[in-house]
Amino acid sequence: MGRWKPDGLGRLEDAALALFGERGYENTTVAQIAARAGLTERTFFRYFADKREVLFWGSRTLQELMVNALINEPQSAAPLEAVAAALDAAGTALQGRFEIARRRHTVIAASAELRERELIKLASLAAALADALRRRGTSGATATLTAEAGIAVFRVAFERWVTETAPKELPSLIRESLEELRGVTAR
Amino acid sequence: MGRWKPDGLGRLEDAALALFGERGYENTTVAQIAARAGLTERTFFRYFADKREVLFWGSRTLQELMVNALINEPQSAAPLEAVAAALDAAGTALQGRFEIARRRHTVIAASAELRERELIKLASLAAALADALRRRGTSGATATLTAEAGIAVFRVAFERWVTETAPKELPSLIRESLEELRGVTAR
Repeated sequence: MGRWKPDGLGRLEDAALALFGERGYENTTVAQIAARAGLTERTFFRYFADKREVLFWGSRTLQELMVNALINEPQSAAPLEAVAAALDAAGTALQGRFEIARRRHTVIAASAELRERELIKLASLAAALADALRRRGTSGATATLTAEAGIAVFRVAFERWVTETAPKELPSLIRESLEELRGVTAR
Repeated sequence: MGRWKPDGLGRLEDAALALFGERGYENTTVAQIAARAGLTERTFFRYFADKREVLFWGSRTLQELMVNALINEPQSAAPLEAVAAALDAAGTALQGRFEIARRRHTVIAASAELRERELIKLASLAAALADALRRRGTSGATATLTAEAGIAVFRVAFERWVTETAPKELPSLIRESLEELRGVTAR
């Protein structure tokens, strides 16, 4: 997602992740983040509403990317194939942010509040994918189930990506996780 | 779950759901709930830590019931079959609480805070089922994926149960939802 990232944003993100890692998320202030980045607090607030937003600013962009990928699948694609296209788009976009994603994961894992926020973002993402499936003509319950299963696939792959030593690339892990889902649900 | 419910608890739950429906969750106090139930605040706090707990006290019992059902499946059962046994146990237990479940759902749907709490409880439930699968010997990623898919099945069935006019019984809806999952993931 490098091309979405103006320089100030990237410096602030890097400074925030460094401070969250060193001092803890709770003990870090916006003033400290701005100072570490060599920018003003005013510049910080041009990019982010608050310090939590440094960790979650990408969610909306990621969601739009995934919904677009889903919608652009041919009408003949099965619901799970359309969701797989959305997951692949996310995997490809996030792969370029590997180091950021790992550091961000460590920060989120250490805070109950942030883990809850991440859960809520993933639930919104599942709801957005289900909506997009319904707009393609998938019925209500099937759309919800396919989107939720897709997000489960994504979570498992993402968790491996940010925790394993020398992991495969995220799109490969997503494909493996999807195959795993097909395997556990096969009769 | 009637047999887990001492009388005071049932009266307080009924009074709380009535007040949450009439005045809104935010505008209801523990004093009002106790008064409506004809009990003291002291009695309220013997059962519940706070008013939110009236809506979530059953989560732990439900989780224990589901984990036990999963663990008691024969070792030969596939991971998804073991999760299906857990979902069936939950469906059977909840079916006797249909009216409470509908009223509770309406209250939770009206509050962002409560919807978030419900998401977090479901995530804990998925984690507990995944743990139980791992204790049966299922590998890490497979266990997580199966448990998450199972919770997606449960959510879709539960949503139908509490929102449809004249729904089927919850265990039937859970079975339908599980078949639906098998359908969407089949090649």
